[in-house]
Amino acid sequence: MNDDSCLFCSIVSGATKAVIVHEDADSLVFLDHRPLFPGHCLIVPRKHCETLSDLPEELIESFFKLVQLMARAVEAAMEAEGTFVAMNNRVSQSVPHLHVHVVPRKRKDGLKGFFWPRTKYANPDAMIEVGKRISEQLSQLG
Amino acid sequence: MNDDSCLFCSIVSGATKAVIVHEDADSLVFLDHRPLFPGHCLIVPRKHCETLSDLPEELIESFFKLVQLMARAVEAAMEAEGTFVAMNNRVSQSVPHLHVHVVPRKRKDGLKGFFWPRTKYANPDAMIEVGKRISEQLSQLG
Repeated sequence: MNDDSCLFCSIVSGATKAVIVHEDADSLVFLDHRPLFPGHCLIVPRKHCETLSDLPEELIESFFKLVQLMARAVEAAMEAEGTFVAMNNRVSQSVPHLHVHVVPRKRKDGLKGFFWPRTKYANPDAMIEVGKRISEQLSQLG
Repeated sequence: MNDDSCLFCSIVSGATKAVIVHEDADSLVFLDHRPLFPGHCLIVPRKHCETLSDLPEELIESFFKLVQLMARAVEAAMEAEGTFVAMNNRVSQSVPHLHVHVVPRKRKDGLKGFFWPRTKYANPDAMIEVGKRISEQLSQLG
């Protein structure tokens, strides 16, 4: 089921080298070669899927148990004070194979809070309207 | 088990108002009132826990199934092209109650790729050494 042109499938298969930190039946963890900070890991499902939305339901539990374990391990190994755990789905996604970043953080490490200028809703009704749109989608999807 | 001084516990209990998008037995989803973009949701476990590392193992499956569902719903509701799904654990964490951000993204929305200048390992051995440290922690934790 893997995609021949996918860099992360190639790491999963062993055709492309990486510093592997952990592997199990469902997932692989390796170091990002251009880390935000040393110890920055990427967790990928072995099975090719593009985004979080595409991760098969039966893999969610094992995948995110591993993400939790990696957050603990990276923090301890790098003597960090916290972690940043994130995934980009399609937009800003460098490799179109789901990968969760686990990045060790320290206070005053130079990364700004939650990065970007925040915005505001024009008024409370606009905010309620957005909430309704999302709830409606949920009831269609759920 | 909830913490009286915790803003998100106060939203969970209903004492503090928020635009609630979804609730179930384990989790609550509401709109961030200072969104990166409209539709920016926060997913929290009802039970107070500070970080991903503290989320009880028995909640991981239901919590991240909901995160996946929210990624789909936010993308559809906001007619987005992708999502950013992230959590800050301790460092840069505004409220010390685990919350996963689900942010709708569009290409050219002004948010820069994966935000920060990347670094490099000094040499391949330094990278391998870091990988070993993390693997060792994993074997102690796992």
